[in-house]
Amino acid sequence: MSDLTIWTYDWVPDGPRGFVRDLRLRWACEEAGLSYAVRKVPFEGRETNHLDRQPFGQVPFLDYGGVQIFESGAGLLHLAGKSETLMPADVVGAAETLQWTIAALNSIEMVSVPWWFLKMSGDADNPLTGWLRQRLDHLERIFGEREWLAAGRFTVADLLMADVLRVSTVRAFGERPATEAYVARITDRPAFKKAHADQMAHFAAAD
Amino acid sequence: MSDLTIWTYDWVPDGPRGFVRDLRLRWACEEAGLSYAVRKVPFEGRETNHLDRQPFGQVPFLDYGGVQIFESGAGLLHLAGKSETLMPADVVGAAETLQWTIAALNSIEMVSVPWWFLKMSGDADNPLTGWLRQRLDHLERIFGEREWLAAGRFTVADLLMADVLRVSTVRAFGERPATEAYVARITDRPAFKKAHADQMAHFAAAD
Repeated sequence: MSDLTIWTYDWVPDGPRGFVRDLRLRWACEEAGLSYAVRKVPFEGRETNHLDRQPFGQVPFLDYGGVQIFESGAGLLHLAGKSETLMPADVVGAAETLQWTIAALNSIEMVSVPWWFLKMSGDADNPLTGWLRQRLDHLERIFGEREWLAAGRFTVADLLMADVLRVSTVRAFGERPATEAYVARITDRPAFKKAHADQMAHFAAAD
Repeated sequence: MSDLTIWTYDWVPDGPRGFVRDLRLRWACEEAGLSYAVRKVPFEGRETNHLDRQPFGQVPFLDYGGVQIFESGAGLLHLAGKSETLMPADVVGAAETLQWTIAALNSIEMVSVPWWFLKMSGDADNPLTGWLRQRLDHLERIFGEREWLAAGRFTVADLLMADVLRVSTVRAFGERPATEAYVARITDRPAFKKAHADQMAHFAAAD
């Protein structure tokens, strides 16, 4: 029995399947060769039924050797502290990985998720479009210059940034060939494919 | 001479003074008793004049003993790794601090900053209001139950969450007495007051 458990919902509608953020933790575990169990809380009543484990009623959260942790970004950094596959042990490589992980959460996703939310709400003249364009254009320049975000090799920062950028509406927003190649390359990794297939099967089993 | 340097702009307009995110790093250094220097890049031309140090043209960024790091959240976590004042050394306390630091960046600020942006753009029927209300109501419940976010004492997670919540429009959005008391208490700390006064003086000196 594994001492690492990833918690997610028992079921979600078709739309978010393949994107629920337990995928980030599954993917990180696959990359790191960590065995894990998946357990579930009911989607129905999620606003209140697991607030003792996730104070905003969301998933995922993690149990790992007596530590409980929520927020996918925090779970990723916690796992990265246990695995040099995810984050180099040297101080400069670790700092680069940390900064790009936070950049994915707070400079890209902080714009892309609200932008997506407004787009889905049918806001034709999306007021966040200029801001998102600016951020994605900066990333396009960076992906044109190098293969990995941090430390000259795959890290958890690439895992997270690719997960943020692979959202179809974001991916379709403008022509950014270096970014597209990056997302395609990172999501072509066997660990992503395994995590994605496992999440799809998890939710399909509940239909 | 200090081996810790915080970089910020040379000048900003009145509006953001007291809120530019070098304040987070100044505050953390004051809490931790770390001496630091402040250096500056020109606000004019910021979109391109320091992309080699901050890929989105923003501030702050940090030099610390040979490590360069951008993103205020990453700078805070990096400093926290050097100071038990900011983050407990025990694994459970560190994980709690990490998860609440990421929650401030990715569950609260990811909603509050775009909400603020739309509000400032004059969007009367702000489409992010319901989402922000939900997140802040969850926090209000939590602040009603306890004094600190993590590890039963002040940590860098409180520093960051209070900085996210003290924005005047966010603070004025609804009646949340436990949150208000929390923000007032955390920002009453001498380290915050010092950091705030120093930032105000830094920008005033450039007028």
